Amino acid sequence: MLRITYQLTCAPHEEPHAKAEDIALEQTAEMPRNTVAGDVAARLIGTVEMVERLDGDRWSAVIAYDDEAAGADVLQLVNLMFGGISMKSGIGITDLELSPAWLAALPGPAYGIAGLRALCGVPRRPLLCTAIKPMGLSAGRLADLAYHFARGGLDVVKDDHGVTSQASAPFAERVGRCQEAVARANAETGGRALYFPNVTGTAPQLEERLETARAAGCRGVLVSPLLQGLDAVRAMAVSSGLAILSHPTLAGVFFHGDHGISPGVLFGKLYRLIGADGVIYPNPGGRFQMSDGAARAINENLRAPWGGLRPAMPVPGGGMDAARVPHWADLYGPDTMFLVGSSLYAQGDVERAARRLRETVERLIWRPAPAPPSPRPAA
Amino acid sequence: MLRITYQLTCAPHEEPHAKAEDIALEQTAEMPRNTVAGDVAARLIGTVEMVERLDGDRWSAVIAYDDEAAGADVLQLVNLMFGGISMKSGIGITDLELSPAWLAALPGPAYGIAGLRALCGVPRRPLLCTAIKPMGLSAGRLADLAYHFARGGLDVVKDDHGVTSQASAPFAERVGRCQEAVARANAETGGRALYFPNVTGTAPQLEERLETARAAGCRGVLVSPLLQGLDAVRAMAVSSGLAILSHPTLAGVFFHGDHGISPGVLFGKLYRLIGADGVIYPNPGGRFQMSDGAARAINENLRAPWGGLRPAMPVPGGGMDAARVPHWADLYGPDTMFLVGSSLYAQGDVERAARRLRETVERLIWRPAPAPPSPRPAA
Repeated sequence: MLRITYQLTCAPHEEPHAKAEDIALEQTAEMPRNTVAGDVAARLIGTVEMVERLDGDRWSAVIAYDDEAAGADVLQLVNLMFGGISMKSGIGITDLELSPAWLAALPGPAYGIAGLRALCGVPRRPLLCTAIKPMGLSAGRLADLAYHFARGGLDVVKDDHGVTSQASAPFAERVGRCQEAVARANAETGGRALYFPNVTGTAPQLEERLETARAAGCRGVLVSPLLQGLDAVRAMAVSSGLAILSHPTLAGVFFHGDHGISPGVLFGKLYRLIGADGVIYPNPGGRFQMSDGAARAINENLRAPWGGLRPAMPVPGGGMDAARVPHWADLYGPDTMFLVGSSLYAQGDVERAARRLRETVERLIWRPAPAPPSPRPAA
Repeated sequence: MLRITYQLTCAPHEEPHAKAEDIALEQTAEMPRNTVAGDVAARLIGTVEMVERLDGDRWSAVIAYDDEAAGADVLQLVNLMFGGISMKSGIGITDLELSPAWLAALPGPAYGIAGLRALCGVPRRPLLCTAIKPMGLSAGRLADLAYHFARGGLDVVKDDHGVTSQASAPFAERVGRCQEAVARANAETGGRALYFPNVTGTAPQLEERLETARAAGCRGVLVSPLLQGLDAVRAMAVSSGLAILSHPTLAGVFFHGDHGISPGVLFGKLYRLIGADGVIYPNPGGRFQMSDGAARAINENLRAPWGGLRPAMPVPGGGMDAARVPHWADLYGPDTMFLVGSSLYAQGDVERAARRLRETVERLIWRPAPAPPSPRPAA
């Protein structure tokens, strides 16, 4: 059995129990109940287990589905969750509970929080990440940025999600030069910065890009699950040997108004389920829209015990002000990777800006008795 | 150059020109304009070409982007169109214009309207399609349904999008039995019905499922692009040799409120661009929400001349009442495939229901001088 919790917003003509029953039918049999054979109806049409009022016209409903309805893969799971009803209205998914059997079938993050920390050689403090950009720079100029960010002491230097394989910086050339630049910076500083190239690309290119990244010595990559396909990311996590940082591009379509999948479920559960070791999401107060509650739910879901899945690292970004990192670190705890981009570029000398950020975070962390890596670090 | 037309809904504090400039920057450089090197800014930041009021707080804006910003693949095109701004608000994409070079790089539908007609042996009348369902039926029971629909004279019998590879009807067994059942019906009636299995599945499974379908003698398949990944569909269209029918599952997330990608652009342009020969969409008045104007835009975009791309077949469905098919056929013209599901099941004897629908459509079509297949058939 898997259970999905929905927030229903009922129009005046809608009765909440009927709306829940309609979802249970639409997402499984997809035909009038009286035309479904009895044995199949009993087994596969979702069971409405609970409907209760939240406030005004908003209701919470829980529907249980047989594991078979979700098939055997994450694509059919998403189809079951929101496929058909995406074209209805007033339905938001606020939680997802999977059976032990289903969870056991998906290995989840190959590295997770502990693995990313080991790759970076950073046992306790928050990790620091930035993006090299903008698209249109040559591979040499992007590599130069990567070099200075690495020298400044950031842990992960990733491509911007719009940097793919433009003629200005073709993938193989860019990866070779950026990886070399970061290795050179590490050799000079004794640091362990990592370069994660954006491998998002055509279906035939993906495998080739992963191979190029591995051959160059990269230990991880950036990918956009909603572009690449959720299962393509799962397959990468299983077989690439590389750490995976997921990018949230396009995800905003799920978050608007009263109809969609909540950020806590999409980023906190689905992205972890497909094996993202670090999950980038738009932080509240940045360039994008995200509530404090949504960010908290993402962090909690990524880190909480969940079957045998490793905890994944929350990576708030999207207009993260370097000066506010201490505030967010206090709030989110040390098992967080802060993605700081524009606010470093705005300081002009990116190496100096990165170094200042690193020093700030070092000071913060060594202050109190550091919390051990745990699912719910104390604030 | 590619051009995107946006409908901006401005909050009281938003100025439409500034909002358009913000989009042009967010979707390309993704960093403050004054931190972007001059040569890159001039080439890659989008150019706001037009901003004009539609009514009240709604504005139309056109932004032109260098082809390089869209990289060389459809994933980066979608990223450029709506990736970052999906997490903002009040932005709707209402049109997309690609350069001849970009269009030439994507072959689009391998069959298109004419190719589907040839496969079905139906030169002029609208095509008829149904879905075998629900999930949970055994392969034998699904095959029995396929047999009767084919005997009734429907042109395409496809799997429901929720029928993947459940234990009750594993993919290979289902495809073998359904294809055999349809072939048997054809042998009995002299018809040419086709069975299109749903191949949507894990990344490693996809190629295997296509091979299984081909080996069984299927001429086309059903796939859900937003689950499988848009580029995976493009790759199928290029190399599978099979006709592709796209399913709209999950697409509703793009259509809610004033923020998203319009159905005319998503179904009418993007799905055609990745090579769907037939594009299923939720028809107005059915179980889902779709306006008459949106349906018209989908139909027009799928059929209109567009670079060297073959016209694709509109496939309205999602609660299409068999009794209303004449109405929609009149409105949409003959180059349409009508997907009728539940309304046939509700009649009990599906073979008889299918035959009655086929006869209705035959009568309709041979009535006036039939319109030739053309981008804009007369009503």
